[in-house]
Amino acid sequence: MSTAGQVIRCRAAVAWESGKPLSIEEVEVAPPQKDEVRIKILFTSLCHTDVYFWDAKGQNPLFPRILGHEAGGIVESVGEGVTDLKPGDHVLPIFTGECKECPHCLSEESNMCDLLRINTDRGEMINDGKSRFSINGKPIYHFLGTSTFSEYTVVHVGQVAKINPEAPLDKVCVLSCGMSTGFGATVNVAKPKKGQSVAIFGLGAVGLAAAEGARVSGASRIIGVDLNPSRFEQAKKFGVTEFVNPKDYNKPVQEAIVEMTGGGVDRSVECTGSIQAMISAFECVHDGWGVAVLVGVPNKDDAFKTHPVNLLNEKTVKGTFFGNYKPRSDIPAVVEKYMNKELELDKFITHTVPFSEINKAFELMLAGEGLRCVIRMDE
Amino acid sequence: MSTAGQVIRCRAAVAWESGKPLSIEEVEVAPPQKDEVRIKILFTSLCHTDVYFWDAKGQNPLFPRILGHEAGGIVESVGEGVTDLKPGDHVLPIFTGECKECPHCLSEESNMCDLLRINTDRGEMINDGKSRFSINGKPIYHFLGTSTFSEYTVVHVGQVAKINPEAPLDKVCVLSCGMSTGFGATVNVAKPKKGQSVAIFGLGAVGLAAAEGARVSGASRIIGVDLNPSRFEQAKKFGVTEFVNPKDYNKPVQEAIVEMTGGGVDRSVECTGSIQAMISAFECVHDGWGVAVLVGVPNKDDAFKTHPVNLLNEKTVKGTFFGNYKPRSDIPAVVEKYMNKELELDKFITHTVPFSEINKAFELMLAGEGLRCVIRMDE
Repeated sequence: MSTAGQVIRCRAAVAWESGKPLSIEEVEVAPPQKDEVRIKILFTSLCHTDVYFWDAKGQNPLFPRILGHEAGGIVESVGEGVTDLKPGDHVLPIFTGECKECPHCLSEESNMCDLLRINTDRGEMINDGKSRFSINGKPIYHFLGTSTFSEYTVVHVGQVAKINPEAPLDKVCVLSCGMSTGFGATVNVAKPKKGQSVAIFGLGAVGLAAAEGARVSGASRIIGVDLNPSRFEQAKKFGVTEFVNPKDYNKPVQEAIVEMTGGGVDRSVECTGSIQAMISAFECVHDGWGVAVLVGVPNKDDAFKTHPVNLLNEKTVKGTFFGNYKPRSDIPAVVEKYMNKELELDKFITHTVPFSEINKAFELMLAGEGLRCVIRMDE
Repeated sequence: MSTAGQVIRCRAAVAWESGKPLSIEEVEVAPPQKDEVRIKILFTSLCHTDVYFWDAKGQNPLFPRILGHEAGGIVESVGEGVTDLKPGDHVLPIFTGECKECPHCLSEESNMCDLLRINTDRGEMINDGKSRFSINGKPIYHFLGTSTFSEYTVVHVGQVAKINPEAPLDKVCVLSCGMSTGFGATVNVAKPKKGQSVAIFGLGAVGLAAAEGARVSGASRIIGVDLNPSRFEQAKKFGVTEFVNPKDYNKPVQEAIVEMTGGGVDRSVECTGSIQAMISAFECVHDGWGVAVLVGVPNKDDAFKTHPVNLLNEKTVKGTFFGNYKPRSDIPAVVEKYMNKELELDKFITHTVPFSEINKAFELMLAGEGLRCVIRMDE
């Protein structure tokens, strides 16, 4: 029996207040409206951004809210005007969108859609400014337009990547945020040439995805930089060949890297969000051709500060957002890279839990254990 | 009668001490040694860098010295091991070199030769650490390895671009520094696409050469930014379509530019060396795809400071040196662009003086008059 056009009652993990364990509740999910899609989520994984907005320190608190944005699922029904997708399509919901009409979407160089660019403060759908989730008629806020910690969710069609139905959703779900962000930062923006050296600042999941990008690009040296030496062993699986701990030096780590590479690395990718790491990542690249790529999200009052001679020596610094991927146009091809075994994803998934134990995924992340925990929605 | 192998006696303009008028003297010019070339200079033009090191404020004073680095001439004789050049070749001496062997020269991306990179503190030839100039046996210092304010000079072969002998040396001499620096910054580094908008900070000779690059690239809007409104009239000849004076606004000029362009310019090129202009040039580019290119040389204690979100919004900032041109490999093709009338140079040459009146060229520059003054060595 078709559920299209009907309210669906299903389980969702609701964050009632900041920092408190999520609670599995029965929620009502309204049908998709114009340009919206309702998706049955099969797998979702936990990303730091979920924890950040659950904790909501220094953020606009928006509760009750259904978090979650890294996920894979199947289209259940589509709203008016949706022609690109149909029920049964395998999809990844994405936290940032692609309207295909604004100057950013029309530019080859940008993925920062004017209409659907990430908006962490928005808790409703843009179509009517209302939520599709409710409990006994009381609205529950959306998160990033995705809210994947629910068996069903409603997403704007511009935030949905249609992928190969053969792709295992329990693996490729991690491509809807972190892994694409890190991998794309290296392959789309830093673009190391075969044989070049790459420094990766921060060996968490995004940094290791950036390292995977360097490995796939044929980098000869992949230098991992992290304050936690226990991360090096794991990082070796991702192609990291050398480890540098800034704590081991009496001088700025960029100076150490310049010395060990005879002038600097060819490329660097910063995945921590620490302003000091951003400056080090820039200053450790080789003059003449070095490129530093900034991925990490800084604090509001940080200042990137460097002597301009570092720039005049023909170094480049550029930022990237979601690995410069356009969600709908580019992510299907990243899934294909996984299917072709060019890109390895399984090694990122260190834990899985049933949906009923979603709070365990939060505990693991808060304890700094593992990389990605995939949550199985059917359990 | 050949002068090869002989000391040549000729006129040179000698800077005896900082800030004092140059004095035309008879100097002895020794023959070129290994990997060196002796050049008869026919035309030289005055660049700010000459004035800067003549004034020598905040610089290591090195006197007596023969300044000059923008010039065109003809090879008189070559030293041991020089096979690329022969007497009679038309050449431009260049203030920075290309050894063709170091990692920078072997990299497609860099022109910052390890061996012959600009060195403002060096007053001797690198071969033997001695000068080729003397007066009554007393050595006179070289400047940038070029010292073109002399009828004959000795230059390392790695700092000599061999050009089309049909090219008028009284025009193309300006390509040996300033015009290539500005033009290359736009066409090689900023790379605006046809129809894009470009902001040029600083409408002096280098900035106008950058504007010329934007014009040649088919930019739709070329916004000139300068504190001196009298420069706008002249700038129109170089394709500048709009003028912005930071003094006319109560807010940072980058905000004004973002407003007038609906989000920011596609590219910007900074040609002043003011740290505030560098920051404005970066912050006025469009998110998603904007590229800011820094050309101007900053003060030693300046700090480039910006909020890192400006970078994460997919803006790029990169520095360039000599327009990213490799002196020997690339400059001959820039001369060809002039010969093909793709690139206009004549409009940069606003004054000419005979060599005997070289101090007039200094006076014009100090008064801020004109763009380039070409000095005719045979008068």
